[in-house]
Amino acid sequence: MLINCAAYQNGSKLGDIPVADISEYLTRPECFVWVALFEPTVDEIDEMAKEFGLHPLAVEDARKGHQRPKIEEYDDSLFVVLHTLEPASDAMDSALIDGEVDIFVGRNYILSVRHRTQKGFGDVRARCEREPALLRYGSGFVLYALMDTVVDRYFPILDTMESDLEQIEEYIFVRNTARSNIESLYALKQKLMLLKHAIDPLMEATGKLYGGRVPQVCAGMGDYFRDVYDHLHRIHATIEGIRDMLTTAIQVNLGMISLSESEVTKKLAAWAAIIAVPTMLAGIYGMNFKHMPELDWTFGYPLAIATMVAVDVYLYVRFKKTRWL
Amino acid sequence: MLINCAAYQNGSKLGDIPVADISEYLTRPECFVWVALFEPTVDEIDEMAKEFGLHPLAVEDARKGHQRPKIEEYDDSLFVVLHTLEPASDAMDSALIDGEVDIFVGRNYILSVRHRTQKGFGDVRARCEREPALLRYGSGFVLYALMDTVVDRYFPILDTMESDLEQIEEYIFVRNTARSNIESLYALKQKLMLLKHAIDPLMEATGKLYGGRVPQVCAGMGDYFRDVYDHLHRIHATIEGIRDMLTTAIQVNLGMISLSESEVTKKLAAWAAIIAVPTMLAGIYGMNFKHMPELDWTFGYPLAIATMVAVDVYLYVRFKKTRWL
Amino acid sequence: MLINCAAYQNGSKLGDIPVADISEYLTRPECFVWVALFEPTVDEIDEMAKEFGLHPLAVEDARKGHQRPKIEEYDDSLFVVLHTLEPASDAMDSALIDGEVDIFVGRNYILSVRHRTQKGFGDVRARCEREPALLRYGSGFVLYALMDTVVDRYFPILDTMESDLEQIEEYIFVRNTARSNIESLYALKQKLMLLKHAIDPLMEATGKLYGGRVPQVCAGMGDYFRDVYDHLHRIHATIEGIRDMLTTAIQVNLGMISLSESEVTKKLAAWAAIIAVPTMLAGIYGMNFKHMPELDWTFGYPLAIATMVAVDVYLYVRFKKTRWL
Amino acid sequence: MLINCAAYQNGSKLGDIPVADISEYLTRPECFVWVALFEPTVDEIDEMAKEFGLHPLAVEDARKGHQRPKIEEYDDSLFVVLHTLEPASDAMDSALIDGEVDIFVGRNYILSVRHRTQKGFGDVRARCEREPALLRYGSGFVLYALMDTVVDRYFPILDTMESDLEQIEEYIFVRNTARSNIESLYALKQKLMLLKHAIDPLMEATGKLYGGRVPQVCAGMGDYFRDVYDHLHRIHATIEGIRDMLTTAIQVNLGMISLSESEVTKKLAAWAAIIAVPTMLAGIYGMNFKHMPELDWTFGYPLAIATMVAVDVYLYVRFKKTRWL
Amino acid sequence: MLINCAAYQNGSKLGDIPVADISEYLTRPECFVWVALFEPTVDEIDEMAKEFGLHPLAVEDARKGHQRPKIEEYDDSLFVVLHTLEPASDAMDSALIDGEVDIFVGRNYILSVRHRTQKGFGDVRARCEREPALLRYGSGFVLYALMDTVVDRYFPILDTMESDLEQIEEYIFVRNTARSNIESLYALKQKLMLLKHAIDPLMEATGKLYGGRVPQVCAGMGDYFRDVYDHLHRIHATIEGIRDMLTTAIQVNLGMISLSESEVTKKLAAWAAIIAVPTMLAGIYGMNFKHMPELDWTFGYPLAIATMVAVDVYLYVRFKKTRWL
Repeated sequence: MLINCAAYQNGSKLGDIPVADISEYLTRPECFVWVALFEPTVDEIDEMAKEFGLHPLAVEDARKGHQRPKIEEYDDSLFVVLHTLEPASDAMDSALIDGEVDIFVGRNYILSVRHRTQKGFGDVRARCEREPALLRYGSGFVLYALMDTVVDRYFPILDTMESDLEQIEEYIFVRNTARSNIESLYALKQKLMLLKHAIDPLMEATGKLYGGRVPQVCAGMGDYFRDVYDHLHRIHATIEGIRDMLTTAIQVNLGMISLSESEVTKKLAAWAAIIAVPTMLAGIYGMNFKHMPELDWTFGYPLAIATMVAVDVYLYVRFKKTRWL
Repeated sequence: MLINCAAYQNGSKLGDIPVADISEYLTRPECFVWVALFEPTVDEIDEMAKEFGLHPLAVEDARKGHQRPKIEEYDDSLFVVLHTLEPASDAMDSALIDGEVDIFVGRNYILSVRHRTQKGFGDVRARCEREPALLRYGSGFVLYALMDTVVDRYFPILDTMESDLEQIEEYIFVRNTARSNIESLYALKQKLMLLKHAIDPLMEATGKLYGGRVPQVCAGMGDYFRDVYDHLHRIHATIEGIRDMLTTAIQVNLGMISLSESEVTKKLAAWAAIIAVPTMLAGIYGMNFKHMPELDWTFGYPLAIATMVAVDVYLYVRFKKTRWL
Repeated sequence: MLINCAAYQNGSKLGDIPVADISEYLTRPECFVWVALFEPTVDEIDEMAKEFGLHPLAVEDARKGHQRPKIEEYDDSLFVVLHTLEPASDAMDSALIDGEVDIFVGRNYILSVRHRTQKGFGDVRARCEREPALLRYGSGFVLYALMDTVVDRYFPILDTMESDLEQIEEYIFVRNTARSNIESLYALKQKLMLLKHAIDPLMEATGKLYGGRVPQVCAGMGDYFRDVYDHLHRIHATIEGIRDMLTTAIQVNLGMISLSESEVTKKLAAWAAIIAVPTMLAGIYGMNFKHMPELDWTFGYPLAIATMVAVDVYLYVRFKKTRWL
Repeated sequence: MLINCAAYQNGSKLGDIPVADISEYLTRPECFVWVALFEPTVDEIDEMAKEFGLHPLAVEDARKGHQRPKIEEYDDSLFVVLHTLEPASDAMDSALIDGEVDIFVGRNYILSVRHRTQKGFGDVRARCEREPALLRYGSGFVLYALMDTVVDRYFPILDTMESDLEQIEEYIFVRNTARSNIESLYALKQKLMLLKHAIDPLMEATGKLYGGRVPQVCAGMGDYFRDVYDHLHRIHATIEGIRDMLTTAIQVNLGMISLSESEVTKKLAAWAAIIAVPTMLAGIYGMNFKHMPELDWTFGYPLAIATMVAVDVYLYVRFKKTRWL
Repeated sequence: MLINCAAYQNGSKLGDIPVADISEYLTRPECFVWVALFEPTVDEIDEMAKEFGLHPLAVEDARKGHQRPKIEEYDDSLFVVLHTLEPASDAMDSALIDGEVDIFVGRNYILSVRHRTQKGFGDVRARCEREPALLRYGSGFVLYALMDTVVDRYFPILDTMESDLEQIEEYIFVRNTARSNIESLYALKQKLMLLKHAIDPLMEATGKLYGGRVPQVCAGMGDYFRDVYDHLHRIHATIEGIRDMLTTAIQVNLGMISLSESEVTKKLAAWAAIIAVPTMLAGIYGMNFKHMPELDWTFGYPLAIATMVAVDVYLYVRFKKTRWL
């Protein structure tokens, strides 16, 4: 589905143009074309490939989708694959939807193709059009703006994960929460890996857009792409931190489970003793020997009961002291 | 066993040729020979080595088989070892068969030798012959086509592993599944390591087929080999992700086992108490003291039973509340 | 809030100057301006950005705060982000407050912006002014002095962590301390990760301020920045050491928990046996068979009791020997 | 002990020569001397050092022995230390004997010194003498032949480890094998580390014998040393794979232990219940109340026994269903 | 405290000289001064700094002590920090004393400053003076001799650790040693980390003293410093090996604890059954039913006892078979 197709010159919009005219605008100097597609049909992609003269391998990737994040250079054009993560709209479910944005960038064109994402880039286009001074940089600046937006949208996801971790950490030393803690920790790890797979390859690739030899398209925008890289690196470091804490938290949780079992065993042992001792005494006075003088005492019975109570009180106090109870 | 032996010129097939004529075709300009062997005898390999003038170390490797995946450069020729993974045909068994493809590539020839694999490369040959424009690149393109095919065949294997993991993850928090979970996790890890050993060395080697200095044979096909590298990298990243989750899953499973034991211990303790208390009371009233007034009461017995029941109901409710039962 | 704004020439202070005059001083040769802000308003930052001609991306970072530690080069100026860690003033709480210092450095100016920190850099300014020979190096030396101070302030934090670890280690093999040990270990790990996130990216960045190509501002001060790097590296190595020991300590603590449970189980088993055997004997002599000769013996009862005691003494001694008791 | 001392020219053996003549042969063009020592005395080493003019640091290393595997360049000569691993001859013991081979190689000589190894290099010498075309390469080829042989001898060791692991893996999920499994896994890990310490430093060093700048002695033999490197890399990768599986196997074994304990606890609890309930009932009918109507019933006793049996059958079936029994 | 202060020329000692004359000797050609201090006062250090013209940052480090091991280049001089590890003299205590040696080396001087160490470098000086041929290399050779000595002194420490590990490994599968094993393993890990912190940064730094660009002072001594590096690398590899085995050993020990608990639980369960069954039978025959024919049998009692014994023998044999007892 075609979302947008517009031509820009010297940082300002010339207007929306029909797809068929794209190749014409591409020949004009200082002019570039910006097209946005959403879940396009095979025909739409093929048409774009023809208009812009895209590389067949990149087109095949865009057609198949499900690429890992990457930035590939084909002659003087770039093929960029970004992953988007969006919380499922259903508020009940905390799952993340793993979308994809494929971007083709050449000297005088930029084509973005969105898959499985709800949020578009209308705001990016609007922001770019409000800043003609920067938009004059051409397609390279638009690429920066798109990447910056996608990366910035990772931060709330990451913040949610950090606060999820903090929430679990609060419960980790609370008794009887082991099962739910361990489920939460595992679910968090799953989400974290999703984010990690979106971030890591992209960070690696973005590192080549500034510094030494950079693709022609990004020339002169090194500070901007370094800023994107910096954000990615920050997310990466935070992910690694969370991963490390998750591993520790799972280990600690295991410790808490063992500890709680240990406490149950102690309690079990203590109560078993408290019940077993009177049972043994009762058993003794239940024996049928002819000559058992205590049985004939007037206060034999109360004395026996008193002994039982005394022993149990003693045991109870002692177990309390050693914290078995 | 000789599967195929054909000569190609300018991207189109000249026809199948007898093995003895190979050396003649190798002298023609713009012409290359493509030979496919399947589990060849020593004689067949030696004949090929003579016709193509292969390097003795490479030939020895091909003869012995069981090489690790690699790409070696001998003067202006390449020796490529790929591993194939195929599910055992027996549907009962989920084991993977670890096959091997050795490829010798020179300026004007390509020789593939398959070991322990069922699936051949007939489809690759057919595809190549349908694309004369690309086949004109010569033996380098055929190498790409073979590698691309082998690598693409890893994806369904990897997908199976991912869905296996997801399936285990669903059961990981279900009670009484610990034993089968842990067996499944271990089996998955074993299969994963097999894939990892096929992928990792190959990825490393493929990284040298594009970018800076590349072997003569691959010249001008950098974008294609980078595409193969990219697929390998994606598989590699997914493997690492699965490995990480597997480690966590095993740890979590361990936690679930401890947890379930802890729950059993609590139940045991609770029921032990519920049974032990009436036993103790019964023991007391089974004592043979002469003077035990309760024994003579008309309602002594029902009262004793009532007390027992009351205590047990109280314990039961209390254990229910603290979730020991 | 403006803390300080002064101009320096040839290593000595010219005096405090109004903000509006900054741009004038910047044109004087051999002169540089040093400004310190504390939690500035947006307007204050914008004013500074105008006076010093700061790069918009750096200004945006300073405005938003919460950046990861980094050193970025914009043309001939640097943008440095440092994290400060201060123990919360409340003596009860051992939490660390994670503050931030953003520093803009150019050939002839240095601007520091503090966020969420209590301790300022008054002492740095005083020390610099006492060493005119070094201050003559200009803004690069002030940058060194600020970084050196921030890094030196990490050491007491790190020392506290090391002594915390040592304290926990002393308790780790003491019985009945598992729960508090594991909580302390986890809390220490959390604090350690905070420090790690402050240190690691900074170390990486500082490594580029000496050696090969260094930013203009730091030229000729390589030995000093290497000294800062060296301190950071030392902290880094110590953190890694503590992390490694923490992982081991948690694992060992887990072992102590299992061990202590194992000991409880043994004790439980031993006492259970000591109580159960007399109960069984009593049960036997409580049977109602007509013909039980022992029951009629005069010394039957004392003999039965003696047997019980003898068995129990034997069991007790044996359990003591095998260390179950 | 001198094993062998021979001179070679143009790839064929001139004959065995006395040690004293070595220096004479070294001056002849196209000629090289190959000496093999086994656990030499200090005097023997010193004599060789004088004849060949070896570097004092290398000689000191060879004299002391117990070096880590390495390849050191001294001017235009190499000093190579290899470790050999041989199964102890005593068939009972699966321990590995860690031997050492020190090799001094110069343009026109090669000296090998074996320590603590049973297997010599007679077969290498024989093979070399059968291939004069390769032996013409001189001492560099002999070095390759020795290294290749030492490395090839690692493979059966590695294969044994792999089959050991497979054997343990078969038992890992079998009940009541935990103790022997864990002992086997630990012993395997110990052996693996021995191999790892022999392989890793050597692999690193061998990587410098081909490709870019190589020592004079190895010039022109890059393909051969790369082949050795390739074998080492393959062993290295397999070791890492085994290590990874060992870690997982130990973890899984831990899980199986917990699981089996959990099953014992369940069984214990189930049987405890089955025994405790009749005991409680018997206790009740053993009470001495005057008015217990059931006691006078003719079928009181059989009814009581029937109740007990009924309850126990019910419990047994239920425990069977929930798999506690 | 000044230990030694001597001048050397052409590899032989000129004699001990007063500190005040140092600067004079420094001007003589082919002459160098070697000073050794032990825990010097601030004044002594300052005097040396003046005589030799040491860099202020290095002097400050030496004054403060507690530096991490490092090698820093200041113009044409080096500042080297080494850590020494000595077993505490008190034979009871196996702790290691972490000492420090700071070395300042210039073209014509070498100054060593020892802190917290008992063993001096008198033997190094004696050895150097016995080898005038090597001492002619000047201060660079002395630096090598000092580093070589410090590094060689690590080996007995490392050997102790290896034999400690072997000793623990022997006990790891012995029953009832878990607690002492785990304490020993932890203590070993602590000592190992101490050594690791002494070795790792030094190894990294020493790697820069040979090969490509080396400091002027070390020129021409590459083979010697590579030898030191090689020793450090060997220690490093051994440390990593021990660390790896320690982690595995702790894990395995954990397994042994679980296993031993599992065995206790089985024993507990078995004995509980053996005691509980006769108790239940006794309870049944202790019931007070009027009509219990067995009670009137002449051989009722012996039969009951026989049944009890028979059941217990059966249980005992069965538990023995299943290895619960």
